[in-house]
Amino acid sequence: MDALKERIIKEGQYLGGGILKVDSFINHQVDPALMDACGVAFAERFRDLGATRVLTAEISGIAPAIAAAKHLGLQVVYARKSKPITMPDQVYLTIAPSHTKGRQVELIVSPEYLGRGERILIIDDFLASGATILGLVRLTQAAGAEVAGIGTLIEKSFEGGREALAYLGVPVEALVVIESMEDGKFVFAD
Amino acid sequence: MDALKERIIKEGQYLGGGILKVDSFINHQVDPALMDACGVAFAERFRDLGATRVLTAEISGIAPAIAAAKHLGLQVVYARKSKPITMPDQVYLTIAPSHTKGRQVELIVSPEYLGRGERILIIDDFLASGATILGLVRLTQAAGAEVAGIGTLIEKSFEGGREALAYLGVPVEALVVIESMEDGKFVFAD
Repeated sequence: MDALKERIIKEGQYLGGGILKVDSFINHQVDPALMDACGVAFAERFRDLGATRVLTAEISGIAPAIAAAKHLGLQVVYARKSKPITMPDQVYLTIAPSHTKGRQVELIVSPEYLGRGERILIIDDFLASGATILGLVRLTQAAGAEVAGIGTLIEKSFEGGREALAYLGVPVEALVVIESMEDGKFVFAD
Repeated sequence: MDALKERIIKEGQYLGGGILKVDSFINHQVDPALMDACGVAFAERFRDLGATRVLTAEISGIAPAIAAAKHLGLQVVYARKSKPITMPDQVYLTIAPSHTKGRQVELIVSPEYLGRGERILIIDDFLASGATILGLVRLTQAAGAEVAGIGTLIEKSFEGGREALAYLGVPVEALVVIESMEDGKFVFAD
């Protein structure tokens, strides 16, 4: 997706250690118009998936997931990283390592909003190692629902996430694929 | 705003202790169409404010802030509750008590996205005691920027937040104002 790729070229910063800083339009400041355009692009790719709900993880997945869900006419559920007092005692909970936090985080979803027989579209900001997304896959399966597809704004294809998700046999779509960031020079797929 | 009020009547649950559960359309599951309509309503109320940026706090403020910012043509910055590795060492940080977490949380904004002379529109999901919003006010002022207005989806007017913000002398708008929730019966203003 050209608008997102151009923004990465213009404002993305490679911080070393595989970390791409996109805080000016995704991870701290959000550009709502760009995010809406990403939602349109997700909807085009996932229109025929028959998804019944969008699932993401707080915090950075929320903006792209809402944009995608809006253009697909679906509700979005974001997995919480700590259990709020409004959540029932019985929840779905899994542990996933966080790339940018350097520690394990919990991902928690209430059974109220993730049900048996549903077809779930997972949306997140990054596909890197796939660890967070695999956590969302486990939550989906724990609920007796099915993963219908996976979409991310940016894929860092050199971190192996796509391979880790391949066993699911579902469409995995990234709006922009980065093949390499060595020396801060971005190499994009196609 | 009628659509939001109707949704609160239909799906909101009073849990006691001043806690309103709206997890099915705001705080865990998000209804993107409703949120977009709320964004339109915010934009109508704040169109003439001359705001240069929208500021909110993760996590629950993100959805309404993005919706408002989209319809105002602005960027949105969400204050982080922990400092990610992508953030510079020098930040604006304040401490605010969290109503739903029962503890103090940090609110952190990078100086990269909040600058001197700006006019900031603060958006959040709830106006209760005003503690989180006052934290965002302090961050704004620490950056040498000015609070131009404050908007929330829902105000619980019996918790005194509006009075706590009055000294700022800026417009404070809530899309729905709840005057009482005793025995789970919602009483709305107007």
